[in-house]
Amino acid sequence: MNLREKEVSDSISVSSELIMPNDTNPLGNLMGGNLMRWMDIIGGICAGKHCEANVVTASVDHVTFSSPIFLGDVITLEAKVTRAFNTSVEVYVEVNACGTDGFNHRKTNHAYLTFVALHKETMKPKQVPKLKPISEQELAMYESAPRRRELRLILAGRMEAKNATLIKDYFKRL
Amino acid sequence: MNLREKEVSDSISVSSELIMPNDTNPLGNLMGGNLMRWMDIIGGICAGKHCEANVVTASVDHVTFSSPIFLGDVITLEAKVTRAFNTSVEVYVEVNACGTDGFNHRKTNHAYLTFVALHKETMKPKQVPKLKPISEQELAMYESAPRRRELRLILAGRMEAKNATLIKDYFKRL
Amino acid sequence: MNLREKEVSDSISVSSELIMPNDTNPLGNLMGGNLMRWMDIIGGICAGKHCEANVVTASVDHVTFSSPIFLGDVITLEAKVTRAFNTSVEVYVEVNACGTDGFNHRKTNHAYLTFVALHKETMKPKQVPKLKPISEQELAMYESAPRRRELRLILAGRMEAKNATLIKDYFKRL
Amino acid sequence: MNLREKEVSDSISVSSELIMPNDTNPLGNLMGGNLMRWMDIIGGICAGKHCEANVVTASVDHVTFSSPIFLGDVITLEAKVTRAFNTSVEVYVEVNACGTDGFNHRKTNHAYLTFVALHKETMKPKQVPKLKPISEQELAMYESAPRRRELRLILAGRMEAKNATLIKDYFKRL
Amino acid sequence: MNLREKEVSDSISVSSELIMPNDTNPLGNLMGGNLMRWMDIIGGICAGKHCEANVVTASVDHVTFSSPIFLGDVITLEAKVTRAFNTSVEVYVEVNACGTDGFNHRKTNHAYLTFVALHKETMKPKQVPKLKPISEQELAMYESAPRRRELRLILAGRMEAKNATLIKDYFKRL
Amino acid sequence: MNLREKEVSDSISVSSELIMPNDTNPLGNLMGGNLMRWMDIIGGICAGKHCEANVVTASVDHVTFSSPIFLGDVITLEAKVTRAFNTSVEVYVEVNACGTDGFNHRKTNHAYLTFVALHKETMKPKQVPKLKPISEQELAMYESAPRRRELRLILAGRMEAKNATLIKDYFKRL
Repeated sequence: MNLREKEVSDSISVSSELIMPNDTNPLGNLMGGNLMRWMDIIGGICAGKHCEANVVTASVDHVTFSSPIFLGDVITLEAKVTRAFNTSVEVYVEVNACGTDGFNHRKTNHAYLTFVALHKETMKPKQVPKLKPISEQELAMYESAPRRRELRLILAGRMEAKNATLIKDYFKRL
Repeated sequence: MNLREKEVSDSISVSSELIMPNDTNPLGNLMGGNLMRWMDIIGGICAGKHCEANVVTASVDHVTFSSPIFLGDVITLEAKVTRAFNTSVEVYVEVNACGTDGFNHRKTNHAYLTFVALHKETMKPKQVPKLKPISEQELAMYESAPRRRELRLILAGRMEAKNATLIKDYFKRL
Repeated sequence: MNLREKEVSDSISVSSELIMPNDTNPLGNLMGGNLMRWMDIIGGICAGKHCEANVVTASVDHVTFSSPIFLGDVITLEAKVTRAFNTSVEVYVEVNACGTDGFNHRKTNHAYLTFVALHKETMKPKQVPKLKPISEQELAMYESAPRRRELRLILAGRMEAKNATLIKDYFKRL
Repeated sequence: MNLREKEVSDSISVSSELIMPNDTNPLGNLMGGNLMRWMDIIGGICAGKHCEANVVTASVDHVTFSSPIFLGDVITLEAKVTRAFNTSVEVYVEVNACGTDGFNHRKTNHAYLTFVALHKETMKPKQVPKLKPISEQELAMYESAPRRRELRLILAGRMEAKNATLIKDYFKRL
Repeated sequence: MNLREKEVSDSISVSSELIMPNDTNPLGNLMGGNLMRWMDIIGGICAGKHCEANVVTASVDHVTFSSPIFLGDVITLEAKVTRAFNTSVEVYVEVNACGTDGFNHRKTNHAYLTFVALHKETMKPKQVPKLKPISEQELAMYESAPRRRELRLILAGRMEAKNATLIKDYFKRL
Repeated sequence: MNLREKEVSDSISVSSELIMPNDTNPLGNLMGGNLMRWMDIIGGICAGKHCEANVVTASVDHVTFSSPIFLGDVITLEAKVTRAFNTSVEVYVEVNACGTDGFNHRKTNHAYLTFVALHKETMKPKQVPKLKPISEQELAMYESAPRRRELRLILAGRMEAKNATLIKDYFKRL
């Protein structure tokens, strides 16, 4: 069993996509669902590398589409593990876009996804290596992960809101 | 301008998909991102009908993938408007799956998506018809919509958590 | 073995599709072959549910394309079993189209398809449940099915025209 | 305007396709609808060459799927014009299949499709060159075309069966 | 084992493709990579027929894209074996394009590809039938094949340039 | 006009792809043509960024497929400009593969592609920024580019072999 602690840089994964006609809606904007499909794939590639295993998507958190992406634009998706739990990992995926000519660069979206690692034969969840955050940003994401996890469990109906200690504290303190 | 109040049944939209090889990961499960792509498409079809306009996805709320869907399974996605705001609508999409033979029927996922209606020429947001909920379930979803909207605004960084009256009340009361 | 008589509503299947760029020809019309591909898929989903088995397409009857469908249109395909034979079923698929905004609704196409049910292991044809038509329209389709079947057998070269009693009677009576 | 008589060989069109995973159903057979999509494309390429114009599919006649085609098989579709009418043509498409290794060659399907030629700007039907059949097989198909056309018009609900002189004669003589 | 000598016409393979929106770049030109994908598929179909075996691509030689191909154009790819080596073949693929209306016909590209034949079970290279060139053009391609092979081996880093007798002679003679 | 000298790092582009069923041949290997399609896309993204313009593929040099890539593998394509000419650039694309679990990492392929920059309106070739190589590897690729260009021109039939000074010298010296 692999119990080696791993760093974010060990599994960081990047993908660039050129927006083609079938990716866009009749207004010429990239359809949100296509972007989410790409976020899921790059997130899964990243999670697979960290977990050293096959992974399946367990959840995708809230995604906002505020900045339109157009036909012919190039998007770059970057995925990095923010925290490893027992048999799952949380992955942060950020999307940046620019024109074919490299100009008009802007961040367009981000999301947190979670993936569960599975044993290939038994298809049972499998323990995953711990994550060792290094940079300040990595640490911040690492430390806020349990709160995002609580919200996820409430939204999935797997935790009662009254037991969500971290979130309750967060809102009560405001 | 169309100011007619509309009902959920005026725009309810259904789609069935057969899970094909390219939709699955190497373990033979439907990839989460592909499901989200279909949820976005059927949600957009539903929103377009309610708004009588072109729409773009504004956000997709948290989605949980707890029940695997396999190659050859048939999924049915049902989308219905839960509430209309000024220039946007919230749409609830529910996914049910069964085998090719129609057995092993189970609910697998659901999500709330929001869509903004746009004028075709100006590409500016466009006022949308109000929704008139009828059934008890429709009313419940209608009434909880503003709270989901607050959470969405916080998660999108467009509202400070301290101003989220509905959510703060909800957690403080627990 | 399942010998339970089933109703049309037990297997009725619906799918909505948004017409995307790659679905259209250079004139911007949905290509006929793409529509037939979708008709086959939804027909097969419906047949699988009725037969409680894997099915393969045995034939697709004549399809007319008289009303163009455009990029950005939404089509809704509805499939229902019209009659069950020994190891096969006839399925009626109807296609309706409208614009993104839900307007300009019109029926565009229909076709009768037949599917054979197969045992998953032996790949041999498998007996299918009988169909019990309820509504007047269901009864009419049920009763005209044998005549369509005769035409199908002639066109497939599996029945000599002189033995096509039902069709011969039909034309002689005119 | 082009009124030159053309031969079958002027527009004969051939295409080979390798059957890939997404083309097959969960039993590993090519799905009928995918085959019809390819038949439509090669038929349209052939019709476009004969008509020297953009064309749209007007109808696809009955197709039988009696011989399964498997993953990894290679199919060859051949399309040839059988008769030109005023603004439309009838095209015969034949499908042959074999294994990757070129063995197990067999004819699997055929269909008659009709296409209408359109002026690119006005989108109105456009007169098409006449066809001059040469071989015996070309002549036989040329001469039986009006009868197929009558059947097509009846099935499309554009001719009453009682007015279908050619078909009535055909069946009365049996 | 099959040691029968085969002719070019035994495995010549043709495919026609209609250029669709997703095949083109934002300028409306067919993307080079899509064309290479089609060249590889038709080359592989041809090689499989000659070798009577499954084949995998071993190399694709230099391809030039000098003449743009547009949305709605029809391209025809023709593949023929130029020479069989021990367990591999060289295939020549030529691409011709024309408009939807069959006009503006021009040769656009060509390439030499090599394929290795594999035993289906062992996945080991498998001996292939010899090629017997007939026409003058077939002979010319057959005879220049070893020189192209030398260049290929140098470019793949599998032969030192100083040992490339045929190429060195060719250039020294200039 | 942009005459600023740019560095390799200004346009380096990376993409990761998960090998899905439709990307593989019946033996389960990634098809060569699909890999070339991805190499072309990432090469074009890189060239577009360097040239600050729309680009079209002018040529793809010899590609060798010596190491099979399997279903479920993850490949990473990295593209960097090696030299800018007057209105075109040469781009080096390298492909590395590993399993879903991140192990079995190996370099599988590389190729040199050239792209021409075009004015968006006139579609005429457009001058491109010069490249300033920094590292030793960048310098080596920069300096060997003219020789690769000569070979390209010969293979495209646009230079007579006898005028290929750099290549002739190279072979004569051996």
